[in-house]
Amino acid sequence: MQSTNPTAAILVIGDEILSGRTREGNAHHLAKVLSATGFDLREIRVVADDHAQIVGAVQAFDKALGGAYDLLFTSGGIGPTHDDITADAVAAAHGTTLEINETARAALQARCDRMGTELTPNRLRMARAPVGSTLIDNAVSAAPGFSIGNTHVMAGVPEVFRGMVDWLIPRLPGGRPVQSLTIEVRRGESDVAEDLQAIAGEFPDLSLGSYPFNDDQGWGTNLVVRGLDADRVATAMDAVKQRLKL
Amino acid sequence: MQSTNPTAAILVIGDEILSGRTREGNAHHLAKVLSATGFDLREIRVVADDHAQIVGAVQAFDKALGGAYDLLFTSGGIGPTHDDITADAVAAAHGTTLEINETARAALQARCDRMGTELTPNRLRMARAPVGSTLIDNAVSAAPGFSIGNTHVMAGVPEVFRGMVDWLIPRLPGGRPVQSLTIEVRRGESDVAEDLQAIAGEFPDLSLGSYPFNDDQGWGTNLVVRGLDADRVATAMDAVKQRLKL
Repeated sequence: MQSTNPTAAILVIGDEILSGRTREGNAHHLAKVLSATGFDLREIRVVADDHAQIVGAVQAFDKALGGAYDLLFTSGGIGPTHDDITADAVAAAHGTTLEINETARAALQARCDRMGTELTPNRLRMARAPVGSTLIDNAVSAAPGFSIGNTHVMAGVPEVFRGMVDWLIPRLPGGRPVQSLTIEVRRGESDVAEDLQAIAGEFPDLSLGSYPFNDDQGWGTNLVVRGLDADRVATAMDAVKQRLKL
Repeated sequence: MQSTNPTAAILVIGDEILSGRTREGNAHHLAKVLSATGFDLREIRVVADDHAQIVGAVQAFDKALGGAYDLLFTSGGIGPTHDDITADAVAAAHGTTLEINETARAALQARCDRMGTELTPNRLRMARAPVGSTLIDNAVSAAPGFSIGNTHVMAGVPEVFRGMVDWLIPRLPGGRPVQSLTIEVRRGESDVAEDLQAIAGEFPDLSLGSYPFNDDQGWGTNLVVRGLDADRVATAMDAVKQRLKL
């Protein structure tokens, strides 16, 4: 698919994903949001709570650091415990260090006051942000994310991640949302491959995908046309239907 | 966690994941299997149906090509359509080309005979495998995966992927399965951080993780101890319980 939309990557950080303990869902959620808001997601990477892996990925992805993509979103590893090393690693990747952010401290203090708890040293850890970063609001549990360069650092807890995405995305300069049409055929992928390839050749500006599945009625295939221009997508889908006699 | 187990990466290939259309589940399934069979999964990467991205990832991961990990497993992009380019890209990464594999052709022919269909050129595409590769059995739909170097190429359709994993994993030299114990506490992660860090210091051979969640009873945290030695894991969990008075 031809697109001049900003490109993006997602970096998911957490041993619990790699061990199979947790099924990751934040990347899928953000992928849907990015498609709908005009960002072109090119890569998702999942790494351990490992300093070198995180630094390496941030530098490989963030254009501000010579990386491959316009924007980088991270999920996970910004909590209060010893294995939450994302903030340190992202700061290091950007050649800076962490400081207690006073706005973040105030938000955490206000939450502690409401809950009748103390802002302990461990809780205060969550007020750390790189020098020169700006905060990402956390409406759920106060501890903020942050943006530095083109890297946007968010929490791993799904409710908090979604809240941060809701806050952040409308504040970024997006592109044209992806338009897509899907049709399900009760035929195997092999049976539609040739026709689909022919149509793909006629519409080089679009993306035509075929996704086989197997359900209680046997094999079928979802045919998906994607592109930035709704009229072109509709025209291509008409061509698919005509050619496949649907 | 200290481990001498073989290291592994998973490469998921497919535009439909990055567009948010499909929620990926194969990596999570394989992550659980790898933990249980003694492989140390270090990284998951999701890329588009893009030749350069696939070649780059295979070369970055497969130790046989100077990459970072002992084993690489891929999912997706080996179907019959124009956007299924995984086999070509993996062959290129390994410096070889594709050929029609006669064993694969025979399996596909037998399936077509059973179903009363023809082995069309598109279906025959699924019999292509790199010169020098060995096949991975597909009990579900006949079209096989393949192994070349330390790269193991499997289908993206979940039922087929699982079948290939079931066939392949017992044939690989594994290590010691990871042992893990979990306890749920109805306390915030901040409240257990200090105690957990102290215990982690006493058990440098283990991995201690804390995973906050938010349900209808409010915030809680799952504490997880992981390691290769079941006795050590149990001893560390006892220490967690004692220290947190559980």
